[in-house]
Amino acid sequence: MVKPIILITMGDPAGSSPEITLKALSNPEVQGIAKYVVIGDLRVLMKVREIVGARKLNLTVVNSPEEVGDELFNVGVIDLSNVGVEELVYGRPSAVGGKASYEYIVTAVDLIRSGRGHALVTAPISKESLYLAGYNYPGHTELLAELAGVEVVKMMLVFKHLRVTHVTTHVPLRKAVELVKKDNVYVTIRLTHEALTKLFGIESPKIGVAGLNPHASEGGLFGDEEEKEVRPAIELALREGIRVEGPYPPDTIFYRAYHDKEFDAVIAMYHDQGHIPVKMVGLLEGVNLTLGLPFIRTSPDHGTVWDKAGKGTAKETAMLEAIKLAVTLASKQLQ
Amino acid sequence: MVKPIILITMGDPAGSSPEITLKALSNPEVQGIAKYVVIGDLRVLMKVREIVGARKLNLTVVNSPEEVGDELFNVGVIDLSNVGVEELVYGRPSAVGGKASYEYIVTAVDLIRSGRGHALVTAPISKESLYLAGYNYPGHTELLAELAGVEVVKMMLVFKHLRVTHVTTHVPLRKAVELVKKDNVYVTIRLTHEALTKLFGIESPKIGVAGLNPHASEGGLFGDEEEKEVRPAIELALREGIRVEGPYPPDTIFYRAYHDKEFDAVIAMYHDQGHIPVKMVGLLEGVNLTLGLPFIRTSPDHGTVWDKAGKGTAKETAMLEAIKLAVTLASKQLQ
Repeated sequence: MVKPIILITMGDPAGSSPEITLKALSNPEVQGIAKYVVIGDLRVLMKVREIVGARKLNLTVVNSPEEVGDELFNVGVIDLSNVGVEELVYGRPSAVGGKASYEYIVTAVDLIRSGRGHALVTAPISKESLYLAGYNYPGHTELLAELAGVEVVKMMLVFKHLRVTHVTTHVPLRKAVELVKKDNVYVTIRLTHEALTKLFGIESPKIGVAGLNPHASEGGLFGDEEEKEVRPAIELALREGIRVEGPYPPDTIFYRAYHDKEFDAVIAMYHDQGHIPVKMVGLLEGVNLTLGLPFIRTSPDHGTVWDKAGKGTAKETAMLEAIKLAVTLASKQLQ
Repeated sequence: MVKPIILITMGDPAGSSPEITLKALSNPEVQGIAKYVVIGDLRVLMKVREIVGARKLNLTVVNSPEEVGDELFNVGVIDLSNVGVEELVYGRPSAVGGKASYEYIVTAVDLIRSGRGHALVTAPISKESLYLAGYNYPGHTELLAELAGVEVVKMMLVFKHLRVTHVTTHVPLRKAVELVKKDNVYVTIRLTHEALTKLFGIESPKIGVAGLNPHASEGGLFGDEEEKEVRPAIELALREGIRVEGPYPPDTIFYRAYHDKEFDAVIAMYHDQGHIPVKMVGLLEGVNLTLGLPFIRTSPDHGTVWDKAGKGTAKETAMLEAIKLAVTLASKQLQ
């Protein structure tokens, strides 16, 4: 069996990102199933290896991902050597951290788009660091979309068999309500269907769509977006042969998906509608899978964990899950 | 120890409400800790007793709640005799069901306001039945508020130690956003504090307040309601000596309350923000506790379960929890 090459961007060097990366990679669970290449800074990583006590990891500089060997605990490093370790201050946003994390992403996207990696896992970056370095993006995902030349991307959160794709994410709730439009809901359903079939390998997946309003408006009693926007989007998807149902009351559709396994994925209308249920059961294990990019990209669904940076104490659970999901999905593509 | 008298309205006779009432009352868990009086229709209840196989329940007609004895499995019935059992059609809204359920509530509120009961548990009614009978209310709670002569009531959902009070409930999300105003948030915090101290007997409870927007707007990046409305409400409550914190990111505050026990209650800005997390872990066990009424009122957080009416198969879990919570809170008042 060919092992997939997983590219991992190191994230903000001043945050906990390099630490959770190496902690996750030292977990035996991810060893032997893939080859790993971290795009980052070797000196930062060597220091972090000491901090987190991951001495069994063998960090080897490579020029290109395919050079990495598949010995256990071997990790290839594409060393951009763009951080002065001496002047690095842990635990806060900085221009140097923003510039460095931006460069890891640009390099990683170049590599994966030229076929030299099978999936990309991104460790957390800081919007504020990016901004200090002169890059202004609402988030990681928007930067990736721009670099990949795509316009529509959607965030799927994954925890075990609970998969939730969001019609909108980082916008005010007031604005999110306005963005619940037929086309936007439809494209979210379509991207979700494609991910379930092509990435997760589910033959005839069933998608449940949440309403926007309480009780999915209970027949128009509490709002009309269900009838005007959500239902037409569902009907459009149904006409294309997608198995999709709803709009269902938002307060029960997620437990139906999680506890009763009624749906392979749920479409959430806004950030917290989808994030609250996943985090309620998945705590910090939720993985972000970006739909719409021309490559597989996962990331832990949390930030740089500034307050634990440099201490080796940030939990790597979500990063580990992000790596495992990337390996699983990339392996399916290679079969 | 004096046992509290728990008044229970039978709910819509054509729905599963009478069934879940008797099923819950036959549970040994609620026996011996309170006296129970169902305000309903004796003939309906006798038939339902057969349907659900609750023959050990001894249904005794009483004229007033204090007449009920405290033998195990004894249930007093205030018989309004207002349903023709022969013409009752199970499983759908009806004028007769609406009129009957309305009358149970009116009678129960009269009884509890005149001090002849210590808590009220309401089995589900149907807005549509009420409407067919000529009564137009957005819900059960609004009807109770009107009968009790109060204007501001708030819904608290309770599952184990997770308590969530909602600033708004049954309104379109678009409208809910508009209703996130300082005074409205403040009164929700205050009623929650009063409930935690006076009803739950928690000495210095800690309340966490959710933001409205993703990440609680991340410092204004995604909306300004946190700064303009939520924070001033929190500050007002703090000045009155209430222990309250926030606004916190909505996607993590509920697991902080539930898994980490950080808060005795959480303030949710809208229906689904609070309902999704409670239902995700509480499934169908969530209990609705109405804050702001001059008496204790609990109810299961679900509807009439039309599709199971007359079959005896509707789950009584939430009704049982509603009764248990009513007994617990009423007993504390009697201590």
